[in-house]
Amino acid sequence: MKSQLEKELAIARGLVEEFLMDDPFPAKVRPAALQEAVRLYPFRGGKRLRPVLALWSCGAAGGEPVRALNAAAAVEIYHNWTLVHDDIIDCDELRRGKPTCHVELRNRGAGELGLDPVRARKFGTDFAILAGDLQQSWALDVMLRSTDRGVSAETTLAMARRMQSFLGRELISGEAMDVEFEYRSGRPSLPELTEMIRGKTGALLAFSAECGAMAALDTPDWNAPDVAALSSFASELGFAFQLLDDLLGVFGDEQTFGKPLFSDFREGKPTLLFLRAMAALPPEEQAELDSMMNRASYSAEDGRRIRCLLEKSGARDALERDAAESSEKALASLARLPENRFRSLLEALAEHLLKRNV
Amino acid sequence: MKSQLEKELAIARGLVEEFLMDDPFPAKVRPAALQEAVRLYPFRGGKRLRPVLALWSCGAAGGEPVRALNAAAAVEIYHNWTLVHDDIIDCDELRRGKPTCHVELRNRGAGELGLDPVRARKFGTDFAILAGDLQQSWALDVMLRSTDRGVSAETTLAMARRMQSFLGRELISGEAMDVEFEYRSGRPSLPELTEMIRGKTGALLAFSAECGAMAALDTPDWNAPDVAALSSFASELGFAFQLLDDLLGVFGDEQTFGKPLFSDFREGKPTLLFLRAMAALPPEEQAELDSMMNRASYSAEDGRRIRCLLEKSGARDALERDAAESSEKALASLARLPENRFRSLLEALAEHLLKRNV
Repeated sequence: MKSQLEKELAIARGLVEEFLMDDPFPAKVRPAALQEAVRLYPFRGGKRLRPVLALWSCGAAGGEPVRALNAAAAVEIYHNWTLVHDDIIDCDELRRGKPTCHVELRNRGAGELGLDPVRARKFGTDFAILAGDLQQSWALDVMLRSTDRGVSAETTLAMARRMQSFLGRELISGEAMDVEFEYRSGRPSLPELTEMIRGKTGALLAFSAECGAMAALDTPDWNAPDVAALSSFASELGFAFQLLDDLLGVFGDEQTFGKPLFSDFREGKPTLLFLRAMAALPPEEQAELDSMMNRASYSAEDGRRIRCLLEKSGARDALERDAAESSEKALASLARLPENRFRSLLEALAEHLLKRNV
Repeated sequence: MKSQLEKELAIARGLVEEFLMDDPFPAKVRPAALQEAVRLYPFRGGKRLRPVLALWSCGAAGGEPVRALNAAAAVEIYHNWTLVHDDIIDCDELRRGKPTCHVELRNRGAGELGLDPVRARKFGTDFAILAGDLQQSWALDVMLRSTDRGVSAETTLAMARRMQSFLGRELISGEAMDVEFEYRSGRPSLPELTEMIRGKTGALLAFSAECGAMAALDTPDWNAPDVAALSSFASELGFAFQLLDDLLGVFGDEQTFGKPLFSDFREGKPTLLFLRAMAALPPEEQAELDSMMNRASYSAEDGRRIRCLLEKSGARDALERDAAESSEKALASLARLPENRFRSLLEALAEHLLKRNV
């Protein structure tokens, strides 16, 4: 199945990328530096997971995937504006191995405009704020043009509304909660962290599947059974993926994981895995685990000790159970839909994303 | 007429303010600091010129103004998100005499969260970026609920589309041009500055009138004659107002103008008035006028000299001519509509805004 999945993924990505390249919205943006910044992330590639979810959810709900092409491109652009603003907030310098939007603009300010470092930095941030703002407008504009694909005005309106009042509000609230965790003195509680994750990453995955299904069925009702089933599939899949990511970041194999282990510990970022362990450990071991945060490097012995504490506390088992439960919920939601080619593709995609061994 | 105008303005503002207070969108925003930031500017009052334009344009095009109430509230919220992001970019500390959004949040970070000044500043900016992002979502959500007022799905869709592809793109491009002028070495040209002003302030005024008229006529066609006439009225009115503002900032009476004179000079901000004079003056006087920029204070003699150069160059006359021309265009556009109470109110509003003596 894998090579078939890869082939289908490439087709879906190709559709979205062609749409993004050809879309007329950015061409009228001025000045040139802003126009390029608006196109930067959407043209940079990536997994395109969200638009693929939209296209295949449309297919799984019985529509031609191309009916959801505007919705798919819209969620991809939407995802990108949140990345541009997040990167400013997190002061990140790299995104997909290349300079982030504000860094790219900062370099342009230093080069083309000859600005000194302080002014170049301010210029980069200012323009990146506006680039993200414009991408939010672009995403909406593309979504609102779903009528070009034969989707009715009522359904298009409902998709756009959900994009504001569910996706926008949940996602930005999730991001703000994440920012607040960094600034306040105490750690988030388990429910708070769960809510943040469900908002910051779950809402966009859920919405991607939801709008694909709404386009397929041409329904303004986001509670329609097949729409809700696909939304729940994507949301639970995303949550399971996040839990697995927590686990792999500690128990995984650095080679196959693709990122350095213990990076959440290094950054002092509490994960669900960490918070669960802290809640279950006796005070002395709580303090020991806590002392593992924010270190410059982790020796093999540190790594063994972290793993030992996470296992002893029962946090590893609990997270594996939760991940399995969310995976099952995801697949059960999918199973409520009639069998077809795209339902199988979504199943294969879920298995592919979740099969990473801990 | 003035007291009648004031009375009607108060009624229109009251409608919009009641809508903003009652709207359910912000209530689900988390955390509390972000929710309050989202409400901050929209609840702070102000002239509410844009929503009034929407409501009365709806009336002038033959609809009950309340049909455009969602559109009116939407343009007001939209205006506010652009102010929040502009204030970050311009490092402004005050807005309508009170702390700007990022300053309010910075103070909250320093107080409630006990952050040191550097972290409080970063917290304030981060949350203000997200507050503006959410207001953009809120504005769109309110606009998309125009169907609650009996506006058809097709028309609502068209209004929302124009909000992205005309308003959003033009306004943000205008703001970016303004930012770029500050960073690049040369001054903007006259056409560049005109384009910036038309985008940054004109697009929102034009759109406010346009969507009011579209709601009234329930037409998705923003080129319909009455829609275009009202849009052109608002756009020309805004441009004339801006030109008068340039003139009053130099030739006006500080008492009635309400702002210190020569503030554009003090900030080194080229206005159309300044650029026109620079283009017309001989080299020596060009240099003299240029030397008046960026001073800490302006003596009575400086003021006389600036006025003299602006008059001598013909720039004052030219701007007065342009302002008169735009005013006439605005009123001529309005005159294309059948006479009714709201057309008269728009006329009175225009006269009120433009009657300030230079």
